[in-house]
Amino acid sequence: MQDNIVKEFNDYRAKMNDKILADNNKIIKRIFNLDTNAFSEGALDVKTKELLGLTASMVLRCDDCVRYHLETCYKEGLKKEEVAEAMSIATLIGGTIVIPHLRRAYEFWEALETQS
Amino acid sequence: MQDNIVKEFNDYRAKMNDKILADNNKIIKRIFNLDTNAFSEGALDVKTKELLGLTASMVLRCDDCVRYHLETCYKEGLKKEEVAEAMSIATLIGGTIVIPHLRRAYEFWEALETQS
Amino acid sequence: MQDNIVKEFNDYRAKMNDKILADNNKIIKRIFNLDTNAFSEGALDVKTKELLGLTASMVLRCDDCVRYHLETCYKEGLKKEEVAEAMSIATLIGGTIVIPHLRRAYEFWEALETQS
Amino acid sequence: MQDNIVKEFNDYRAKMNDKILADNNKIIKRIFNLDTNAFSEGALDVKTKELLGLTASMVLRCDDCVRYHLETCYKEGLKKEEVAEAMSIATLIGGTIVIPHLRRAYEFWEALETQS
Amino acid sequence: MQDNIVKEFNDYRAKMNDKILADNNKIIKRIFNLDTNAFSEGALDVKTKELLGLTASMVLRCDDCVRYHLETCYKEGLKKEEVAEAMSIATLIGGTIVIPHLRRAYEFWEALETQS
Amino acid sequence: MQDNIVKEFNDYRAKMNDKILADNNKIIKRIFNLDTNAFSEGALDVKTKELLGLTASMVLRCDDCVRYHLETCYKEGLKKEEVAEAMSIATLIGGTIVIPHLRRAYEFWEALETQS
Repeated sequence: MQDNIVKEFNDYRAKMNDKILADNNKIIKRIFNLDTNAFSEGALDVKTKELLGLTASMVLRCDDCVRYHLETCYKEGLKKEEVAEAMSIATLIGGTIVIPHLRRAYEFWEALETQS
Repeated sequence: MQDNIVKEFNDYRAKMNDKILADNNKIIKRIFNLDTNAFSEGALDVKTKELLGLTASMVLRCDDCVRYHLETCYKEGLKKEEVAEAMSIATLIGGTIVIPHLRRAYEFWEALETQS
Repeated sequence: MQDNIVKEFNDYRAKMNDKILADNNKIIKRIFNLDTNAFSEGALDVKTKELLGLTASMVLRCDDCVRYHLETCYKEGLKKEEVAEAMSIATLIGGTIVIPHLRRAYEFWEALETQS
Repeated sequence: MQDNIVKEFNDYRAKMNDKILADNNKIIKRIFNLDTNAFSEGALDVKTKELLGLTASMVLRCDDCVRYHLETCYKEGLKKEEVAEAMSIATLIGGTIVIPHLRRAYEFWEALETQS
Repeated sequence: MQDNIVKEFNDYRAKMNDKILADNNKIIKRIFNLDTNAFSEGALDVKTKELLGLTASMVLRCDDCVRYHLETCYKEGLKKEEVAEAMSIATLIGGTIVIPHLRRAYEFWEALETQS
Repeated sequence: MQDNIVKEFNDYRAKMNDKILADNNKIIKRIFNLDTNAFSEGALDVKTKELLGLTASMVLRCDDCVRYHLETCYKEGLKKEEVAEAMSIATLIGGTIVIPHLRRAYEFWEALETQS
């Protein structure tokens, strides 16, 4: 059951991204494009960049963004302790209002581990 | 099915607004009142004001506020390209954390078009 | 039915808090710990502190935090008018984007009253 | 010297508020008006309300709002320990990004004490 | 004296933008580029877009962004009442924490009128 | 002259931190304490953690927090390209409202390089 939250998230995300991109708004398309570029290998490696994306998403309290970066962190082979440390920094900087997002992040990470 | 998200949103909103206003807190009642006044014709026309409300709601990442203004935009006869341009500005100013709200906004707009 | 939203909230919260704490990240554990300390009697009494927690949660638009503090306010014997006044200040300071959270807060408070 | 930050803040605030109100925008005038009403005695006393205003301003990281409520707290006779406890709750809920505002709040409170 | 705040803002902005762009980070350069595109004539006219940019900047409480859009609004020939209405919507949606930014916005607009 | 912004920042920070800690509020003292622990070597190394702190501070638009982490990044030997990549991710995720903070960050980094 638990891995459904991964599939559900990805399906909705893919379906709506398709509709948004089909709409052909140039600004939005370019922002989507930048998103791919920004997280590819550069002066910093992909793992570090994904942890940056995760931490930024946590402090900004965006569950969907957290889920997206958790999945990429997972696929990149980051360990749970590494992800948890990044999230602990996010909780300290962002405060206890981050905690509800931390709960959902732990649930999503567990689903990622369960499904594989 | 998709137009249900419009009805569900409006029903819950109406039901809870009634309860809040029945509670007779003077400050809250006046804020609700201001809300009606602020978006009526003035130096700026209603369409422009609704686009302002939509853009502010997007960058503040308030899904219910976005839905409310999308519906009013739709009723005021704003075209999808106009709404999409306002949302593209919101995504640029507010960053990629706005994108999950953009997905739900596109879904809601589609529901508005489908139900009519 | 309505009291289910209280139980559901508390069950999920308890279950995930257990998992987070079992993970043994020192920073997160200490933040959870601080949370207990910060709201206990000091120069300010518990009721005042809970109202502070509620107001901060409202302006930061964190539904789960609002629910948590509403429940503690309720258990501490705060009256609905007192809670409503705190929330009216939050709505004024935080703006109309707080209103969707106000709706859910009223619904949750009603559930707290119904279940007892 | 230090009390100048109180005078400077109040002078600029008064001067600009006059200009804003002279501009006769109905919505803005009513919001200013609500502000006065919301913090007057009701189900909650003025001291509690000022602490709510202070805490909300801290977590939203608005220095001018913090200064305004610090001054009112001071005039209402709230003790430093009470104000510090409210601010400690704000720092816990809002996270370490609140700390720079805490520094400026302590400086302003000291100026309030020095000038009297 | 007052028009100095316009010149000071523009000089610092231009100087630092040059340094940032000279640094040749591809992501940042493209975001700067998008910024120019997003506010040019499209389905919505430039005036409307500038009001959207202003309102978004106000609710996100970014003084420099507000100043930038105020100046463009001024150059595009928007009237003070139009700008004030957009800012009143921002204050209602974003709450009283927007007011300190409203003060600085009024001061900047006055400087724009004075210098011409 | 430019390195003064580093010294000024550090002097004010140190002076006010002393006053805050002398005030003996237990919650605040523990949060300050956590701050030291969270950024020390763990599953993630110090450099990565500082980049996380910097990125979180950028998207939350806290200039003082950005300055603090820029200085630690500098002392830890992170290169400008690495820091710039972290900040580009912050600008993409947080949107163009991050740009004014990017300007001040570039100015501060330059001051760090100049003074050494």
